[in-house]
Amino acid sequence: MGGDDGGVGNSAYGRKKFRRSKAHFADRITADGRDGWPVEAGRYRLVVSRACPWASRALVSRRLLGLEEALSLAVTDPVQDDRSWRFTLDPDGRDPVLGIRYLSEAYDRREPDHPGGVSVPAVVDVPSGKLVTNDYQQITLDLATEWTDLHREGAPDLYPRALRDEIDALVEDVFQDVNNGVYRAGFATDQEEYEAACTAVFRRLELLAGRLERQRYLVGDTITEADIRLFTTLVRFDAVYHGHFKCNRWKLAENRVLWGYVRDLYQTPGFGDTVDFDHIKRHYYQVHTGVNPSGIVPLGPDLSGWTTPHHREELGGRPFGDGTPPGPVPAGEEVPARGRP
Amino acid sequence: MGGDDGGVGNSAYGRKKFRRSKAHFADRITADGRDGWPVEAGRYRLVVSRACPWASRALVSRRLLGLEEALSLAVTDPVQDDRSWRFTLDPDGRDPVLGIRYLSEAYDRREPDHPGGVSVPAVVDVPSGKLVTNDYQQITLDLATEWTDLHREGAPDLYPRALRDEIDALVEDVFQDVNNGVYRAGFATDQEEYEAACTAVFRRLELLAGRLERQRYLVGDTITEADIRLFTTLVRFDAVYHGHFKCNRWKLAENRVLWGYVRDLYQTPGFGDTVDFDHIKRHYYQVHTGVNPSGIVPLGPDLSGWTTPHHREELGGRPFGDGTPPGPVPAGEEVPARGRP
Repeated sequence: MGGDDGGVGNSAYGRKKFRRSKAHFADRITADGRDGWPVEAGRYRLVVSRACPWASRALVSRRLLGLEEALSLAVTDPVQDDRSWRFTLDPDGRDPVLGIRYLSEAYDRREPDHPGGVSVPAVVDVPSGKLVTNDYQQITLDLATEWTDLHREGAPDLYPRALRDEIDALVEDVFQDVNNGVYRAGFATDQEEYEAACTAVFRRLELLAGRLERQRYLVGDTITEADIRLFTTLVRFDAVYHGHFKCNRWKLAENRVLWGYVRDLYQTPGFGDTVDFDHIKRHYYQVHTGVNPSGIVPLGPDLSGWTTPHHREELGGRPFGDGTPPGPVPAGEEVPARGRP
Repeated sequence: MGGDDGGVGNSAYGRKKFRRSKAHFADRITADGRDGWPVEAGRYRLVVSRACPWASRALVSRRLLGLEEALSLAVTDPVQDDRSWRFTLDPDGRDPVLGIRYLSEAYDRREPDHPGGVSVPAVVDVPSGKLVTNDYQQITLDLATEWTDLHREGAPDLYPRALRDEIDALVEDVFQDVNNGVYRAGFATDQEEYEAACTAVFRRLELLAGRLERQRYLVGDTITEADIRLFTTLVRFDAVYHGHFKCNRWKLAENRVLWGYVRDLYQTPGFGDTVDFDHIKRHYYQVHTGVNPSGIVPLGPDLSGWTTPHHREELGGRPFGDGTPPGPVPAGEEVPARGRP
């Protein structure tokens, strides 16, 4: 979210401790429409950057739940300019549905001079052009539990009622130590702050690897919200967090359990087909000039391993529970070849 | 050599293409003393940084050849200040033999206002306090071929006459693509320059891995100058070149052949016992603030793999030819625990 840097931004790099801002717009789109935003097919547009791990959670949920037709998708340029996320990948540099050049325009329509930054994921109300929510912690939960009438046939239950306490506790630890931990390591301004963050990243990854040694998914025996949230960080780990953010104790590719786990998810329909490694690398290495002054984007890592056998199916598990895998990626939403292994 | 950056230095980072300077002082210390510097036990002092791959070649050669008593050793602080390499690790910040605080003082005694930078390895004439040579390409060759009268019993022939053409051709390729290639990648100021350098690094490493697949050492069946020159780059690869210099197609730890080869050498007396990973990491990450503005030193990589079995002895080979391994590291020259796996 934020400029992927929680409002700290490059300009402030080196001046203050990294803190991730809370989402400023926390309205919810619900079945009963109690915040004024009822679930409705075709009414909302999900705006993401494929570079951003927080936005990518929503990309995965939308695919797994089969919400592609009900909730349309806008993909920003992975590299923001001084006006933040922009639609320069679209013809004439405008989102064809919202008609805007910058995501900030939807924020401004909702609240002129709003105090927070412009962040993805963002859900925009198409008729009014107003931002509804940028609450990255809530959006996927609502897709899973409020948008159920619009789910595809065979959609999995990503947030099963009986497992919510366990999922909530786990994702909180994963958020602190891993999802946000890699940013705390990468944006640290002194050695001590970095070491605390990096140590926590790997301590948590070791614990998660222990948990995943004999069970295919994090909670229960099916894919849940917890897996989605861990996946969007892990899929970026070797490509950006390892070098750019100095989380370099080891690569995931050197950890048998986690490398198997993340490849299993990557190869599951709805996960890997949302991932654009080109967007990921260009965003981190070109935007954070406080970390990488040259803006040069590394050639590595070699991505060929992502499609190799992971053997995790031997652990059992039912990826989609009583449901089924999602169908193919809708036309026009495919990740270009340069972003794939 | 140089500030490890060939005279480009941090200040110039981002302004011009990286070019490694030639050594300015190219006098040779020879058996016949034709440049005025005859080989003589106890007369010269080798000044190194354990961080520097060019200086570390001389460290390894000196150990393998048993020249520790004949040629004394000064080790600089791995982090230079604005007057370059300094003896801040020694009591009162002075080299106890030369009595100087900065290596530059020996350069100045040799030639006031000399035009080049101050680089290691440097050999200093103890009686006069003058620099003799900083010719990093020649020093090890002379240790191997001119200092023979002072070699230990059982010293290997590191530059066998019959293999010199093959060694010379190989080390030239390794110099261009690997030893210096990692610097060209790391100090590149545009994407194209970086990609050319990084591509050459890995193309050459692949070729070397092919060569080393079925033979234990690079040339012949014994350790030679060629192995020493490749080793001092490879031992730094995962720790600094992979992340800091963006040579991140894969880690050596992911390449079975090269990871076996470099661990074999690391575990051979005279190689690993010269390596200080702490000096290596602090030098690169703290000195090159143009690449790493925060100066933060990563916690990784996990070094525990360096001492694991490599199985390269199954390929045969005679590490020291008709000779024997060197004895233990002289007292006072041991690498501190924090620099070892």
